[in-house]
Amino acid sequence: MNMNTRNKKEAVVVFSGGQDSTTCLFWALKRYEKVITVSFDYGQRHKKELQCAKEITDELGVEFHVMDMSLLNQLAPNSLTRGDIDVDEEAPEEGAPNSVVDGRNMLFLTFAAVFAKQRGITDLVTGVSQSDFSGYPDCRNVFVKSLETTLSLAMDYTFCIETPLMWIDKGDVWKLADDLGCLNTIREKTLTCYNGIKGEGCGNCPSCKLRREGYEQFLERYRR
Amino acid sequence: MNMNTRNKKEAVVVFSGGQDSTTCLFWALKRYEKVITVSFDYGQRHKKELQCAKEITDELGVEFHVMDMSLLNQLAPNSLTRGDIDVDEEAPEEGAPNSVVDGRNMLFLTFAAVFAKQRGITDLVTGVSQSDFSGYPDCRNVFVKSLETTLSLAMDYTFCIETPLMWIDKGDVWKLADDLGCLNTIREKTLTCYNGIKGEGCGNCPSCKLRREGYEQFLERYRR
Repeated sequence: MNMNTRNKKEAVVVFSGGQDSTTCLFWALKRYEKVITVSFDYGQRHKKELQCAKEITDELGVEFHVMDMSLLNQLAPNSLTRGDIDVDEEAPEEGAPNSVVDGRNMLFLTFAAVFAKQRGITDLVTGVSQSDFSGYPDCRNVFVKSLETTLSLAMDYTFCIETPLMWIDKGDVWKLADDLGCLNTIREKTLTCYNGIKGEGCGNCPSCKLRREGYEQFLERYRR
Repeated sequence: MNMNTRNKKEAVVVFSGGQDSTTCLFWALKRYEKVITVSFDYGQRHKKELQCAKEITDELGVEFHVMDMSLLNQLAPNSLTRGDIDVDEEAPEEGAPNSVVDGRNMLFLTFAAVFAKQRGITDLVTGVSQSDFSGYPDCRNVFVKSLETTLSLAMDYTFCIETPLMWIDKGDVWKLADDLGCLNTIREKTLTCYNGIKGEGCGNCPSCKLRREGYEQFLERYRR
């Protein structure tokens, strides 16, 4: 494997056990002969996220790795990594919500890339979305394309970052799951709720609201 | 500070206590009003590296931070991070020596960038050199430029990565130190030796040989 060769048979999926990355996992399972999932443990309030991720991959018989990213806590004293700060109830009007760790996606994808190269894998799959970027600059397409180039230069290796959700909104993420035949798995087994409740969630946190709104969009667009 | 503003008064220097990054530290001290150094602890065989780095910054009264990067060990079982593998006595003819952790510079610079942004600093200084790249693709200019763009996109912020040693060889790194008035500090206080001996080093490892050859080049070019 070198700078001129892409391995189209295997992929590493950046996986959190949430709706988006689980949809991406099913997407990847249709396209690749072998899929490996990588999760990041950065001291989330909700270790349940990793537990969910493990359950989903166990059921699918997919290789699952957890990388310790606790060092993120050195950098970003914030609400997703420390228990003593409250998550914003509502996303602020402008900019990223206070739960953001600057460059977090970039760090995750870079670690995933190092991991992939060691296994001769060139393709990374991530659930980032520009439609849903909510103020996170490292979810934008222009960033992902730039990172693909930088990673390839950094390691002299042909990385391809696949982003199946880049241009679709939450309603169409549910549609994609439906098309992939995993709608019920996504509904029941994934965790997006800030309060750590699987499936439908608490129903009140911003993440649950977004998830429900997306599902309603899906029903409205495709099930009427 | 935003995507359109550069802070030219302060810089973060990626600092190891070795010859190159110490020369860069002196370079930065001439150009910026405030300089902060960042080192990475990734389980080096030689904690002395960090000790040297601390001594140098203490003497200069420069802010010094160590980030725990022990998670690199999860990714790269190799000779600079594990005690049970020998370092190559000689650099291999082709490719990177076995001490390389793929994308290590990229990870270090990315963490340094997150750290810098939190302090409103845009400029990062690193001692990487294309002349001296020895098979490490993430020391090349094309990589650094690409990373500068990717980091800026990732965090929606104007990063500038300064690389004072990019185009000069070891002989001219000594010349630069001489011009900066820090030749003796570099000779006596920095550590590059694989066997952890400060200053002149063991004299036998590949790193000591390179350092000595560079110094001889310097004498030959500028002191005859």
